Amino acid sequence: MRMRSGHFVMADEGWPGCAKSLKGVILDMCGVLYDSGEGDGVAIPGSIEAVRRLKESDLQLRFCTNETQATREKFVAKLQRLGFDISASEVFPPAPAAIAVLKDRSLRPHLLVHDGLLPEFDGVDKTNPNCVIIGDAAEYFSYQNLNEAFRVLIGLEKPVLFSLGQGKYYKETDGLKLDVGVYMKALEYACDLKAEVIGKPSPTFFQSVLNDMGLQSHEALMIGDDLLNDVGGAQHCGMKGVQVRTGKYRWPKESKYGPHTF
Amino acid sequence: MRMRSGHFVMADEGWPGCAKSLKGVILDMCGVLYDSGEGDGVAIPGSIEAVRRLKESDLQLRFCTNETQATREKFVAKLQRLGFDISASEVFPPAPAAIAVLKDRSLRPHLLVHDGLLPEFDGVDKTNPNCVIIGDAAEYFSYQNLNEAFRVLIGLEKPVLFSLGQGKYYKETDGLKLDVGVYMKALEYACDLKAEVIGKPSPTFFQSVLNDMGLQSHEALMIGDDLLNDVGGAQHCGMKGVQVRTGKYRWPKESKYGPHTF
Repeated sequence: MRMRSGHFVMADEGWPGCAKSLKGVILDMCGVLYDSGEGDGVAIPGSIEAVRRLKESDLQLRFCTNETQATREKFVAKLQRLGFDISASEVFPPAPAAIAVLKDRSLRPHLLVHDGLLPEFDGVDKTNPNCVIIGDAAEYFSYQNLNEAFRVLIGLEKPVLFSLGQGKYYKETDGLKLDVGVYMKALEYACDLKAEVIGKPSPTFFQSVLNDMGLQSHEALMIGDDLLNDVGGAQHCGMKGVQVRTGKYRWPKESKYGPHTF
Repeated sequence: MRMRSGHFVMADEGWPGCAKSLKGVILDMCGVLYDSGEGDGVAIPGSIEAVRRLKESDLQLRFCTNETQATREKFVAKLQRLGFDISASEVFPPAPAAIAVLKDRSLRPHLLVHDGLLPEFDGVDKTNPNCVIIGDAAEYFSYQNLNEAFRVLIGLEKPVLFSLGQGKYYKETDGLKLDVGVYMKALEYACDLKAEVIGKPSPTFFQSVLNDMGLQSHEALMIGDDLLNDVGGAQHCGMKGVQVRTGKYRWPKESKYGPHTF
């Protein structure tokens, strides 16, 4: 398999041997397929074609994203407008996984998320909250909103904080933007707690994608631009992980061409 | 010595023996003398009288604060309006200490601070910044402003972040508010760095107050409402530390009356 968007890096040893057993590919989206930004953002050159070729191959294909600025439906519609052949059932974002956790543990969330994500939680009881969920709220991460989430947490006997991802930053067309993980750390420090991450690199999250494909972890490959959350998370689950040199990838200062191993 | 605002807690063993050698007292301000909030905030009952009595005693008195929402002049004027007999030369906030550090190390800051603090940095070269200073910016901790500070840091070859304090939260008249330490942790995580704290509990900061009094650490007592930054910081420097049960102090759930030792 060779993606025309190219530039990806072997993530660990023993790569050639695993190619034969490969039955499924999981793609990160932002920074791999497209750069977000004004409007729908822009597709990364070669990525639309790469998705098309993967779909024509014998490999199963899923999309695993920590995108939480929109509902899955609206997010997938954006990717379709950019020219990608992707359907909602192939896409795994954190919000639906979070809703399953809430149901399972009878929790009622206070939400600190992007306005665009709110409809995803329409059917969820949010009265008298006993946990807090934060997503990539971007401009909704105002002092007032963060303070409100803090007050809910500090007022709970057993504060529970769910973070939809733990990313540090991502790249938009006009530059790097702080991601939800930064605000997760802020609330962890303020409240002396450890957040539960829903989304990459949570093993539970990756496992749900593997289950959907009916594959074992060693049969699947994760491709992303985040060394910790995509590559590391996948490797931790027994998958292969590959980092692309698009998106948030930053070429090391000591190398003209970037790393060949890591 | 007995403060009428009372309710303070013995911070460590060997207290009675040290009373004889006590020559100076350092008071935290917010949460000890007054609660901040709308307008000037409100004086904590008994605290104006306590400051008056301390001034009448043989003890030296200084005020050590992590207040960074206003210049020292404006801050002291507020305390005077509340009825305290305090002059600017007795008050030690982080901003003047930060300016000394900038000068010493030839650094030009990007500032993420409260608008009220900006005049303190009027004489400081801020062109082409090679470090970032964050203070208790409160509502100025917008997503946009935090992102801007992040971009400055991530663009530096050797990113330097100064945090004016590392507090988690403080109490205003309408409830708890997130403090600068929370945003310090956010930027530390985003940029993979460790901030340099200027203000309490930095030993350098406490030492500058001791120097001003001409006292050894064992001759001084710090009184504050923050167990880590006031009491712990002072003890780390060899001073005695006492925690008041006002301000951000929260009575433990297991006790009707609060702890008597910690």
